Amino acid sequence: MAFQPIHSASERPLPLDTETAEPAHLRRAFRTGGFTGTTANMANGFTQGNVAILPSRYALDFARFCQRNPRPCPLVGISDTGNPNIQPLGADLDIRTDLPSYNVYREGQFEQSTPDIIDLWTEDSVAFVLGCSFSFEEALLKANIPLRHIELDRTAPMYRTAIKTSPAGPFSGGMVVSMRPMSPAQAIRASAITARFPHTHGMPVHVGDPSDIGISDLTRPDWGDASEIRKGEVPVFWACGVTPQNAIQHASIPLVITHTPGSMLITDVPSEVC
Amino acid sequence: MAFQPIHSASERPLPLDTETAEPAHLRRAFRTGGFTGTTANMANGFTQGNVAILPSRYALDFARFCQRNPRPCPLVGISDTGNPNIQPLGADLDIRTDLPSYNVYREGQFEQSTPDIIDLWTEDSVAFVLGCSFSFEEALLKANIPLRHIELDRTAPMYRTAIKTSPAGPFSGGMVVSMRPMSPAQAIRASAITARFPHTHGMPVHVGDPSDIGISDLTRPDWGDASEIRKGEVPVFWACGVTPQNAIQHASIPLVITHTPGSMLITDVPSEVC
Repeated sequence: MAFQPIHSASERPLPLDTETAEPAHLRRAFRTGGFTGTTANMANGFTQGNVAILPSRYALDFARFCQRNPRPCPLVGISDTGNPNIQPLGADLDIRTDLPSYNVYREGQFEQSTPDIIDLWTEDSVAFVLGCSFSFEEALLKANIPLRHIELDRTAPMYRTAIKTSPAGPFSGGMVVSMRPMSPAQAIRASAITARFPHTHGMPVHVGDPSDIGISDLTRPDWGDASEIRKGEVPVFWACGVTPQNAIQHASIPLVITHTPGSMLITDVPSEVC
Repeated sequence: MAFQPIHSASERPLPLDTETAEPAHLRRAFRTGGFTGTTANMANGFTQGNVAILPSRYALDFARFCQRNPRPCPLVGISDTGNPNIQPLGADLDIRTDLPSYNVYREGQFEQSTPDIIDLWTEDSVAFVLGCSFSFEEALLKANIPLRHIELDRTAPMYRTAIKTSPAGPFSGGMVVSMRPMSPAQAIRASAITARFPHTHGMPVHVGDPSDIGISDLTRPDWGDASEIRKGEVPVFWACGVTPQNAIQHASIPLVITHTPGSMLITDVPSEVC
């Protein structure tokens, strides 16, 4: 894993052991550009975050949306308005540059991916950081629960569901879930393990029949790559940090910036908070 | 406990068994007025909340303050601006009437206690509800850990400390803690039990020497009543929901309404959330 380009062969490899590197070193490496791939398996032991950057007039409603939907939207940080640092998440953190890649949406429509947002951040911007599943996946792997999408070098499949979120202002819509196939025994252990990670989605929201939560075809995920469910396995579903992106797209906000899926903010916050 | 006036002999007794009553029944009883006392030991099994009501322009910073200080300020609900109902906390809940008693502060100065705030709530008001220690105290009592202030029919002593909160906008100041004396063995069990209640302050922030956290004299609490520390006991300190009230008072906001200490909002949210 270390010293290898992770996401795409066209990317510049990072000059450090990404699995054991300090979060601050990785953020600095991303800041100087060149690497725009996934942060999966990087900075083991530290919380990685979904990012959403909004104009300040939407920020209180988005804070409400996160507070009301803690499973898909576990808040780990909110910036001060116009301040690109989020002190508790990293002393030198600059949210404008420290992700490998950003997605820009105007009026809910995807416009482009970009390696920094120095020109888009304003005095009116507010950044939200939400926990992501990379932290609990690390814990599952440590407990010898294999993860199919990692074995296959794919992104976990994500699906829109019929599970309603609790709306706030312009933010609403169905919960998005990620799916990992495993044996029933593994599903039980994975539930117990991930319950200890409330800041990174916590325990599963469903196990078994996907139609129970409004998913009609597991082979056609809405985001990520299809996985393989083998004989004797059940699909296990976790609330997913794409939920707020989905809610934001429906809210038709002039300008929203998010991380590019998979390219997360690596924070100084330990994964397992007690 | 049931059928008894709880706080003060001058109050009208409530016509229901307050320990086992449904939260909605208690809220309705408070709504019609007459009872202005403590909600301690009421509606066992349900989360009770500290309340802070602010003008909307302070709400985003206060949401940030709570997010950055989850131990003293565990957010369990934020109202929509101007909407006195907070749906997830109770279908029929009306934050203007459903507490036994409110405290009104203007420019940080206490003005009065009042049994409802119908005339003070406006289209611009935002209500925040933060978990309180009554829920974990119930769990401690169930585990046969006696609580001295309850034995003595007093309010738990609360102290300003040197533990800094993470500031947000105008909100800052030291953490306020509550103290419960117990044996070291009980302190260990109480730590493990309360760790399971992150929405109601979680595990202790300190045990032992009060001067370690800047408390000079345990016999002189800043709020509540002094307790008794007996031979072989240690003081155990939990983050306290008075912390945000303390921060709000320093923020010099034109109008802030809180619950009267001890007279909490009783919500429909189970105490032990998994």
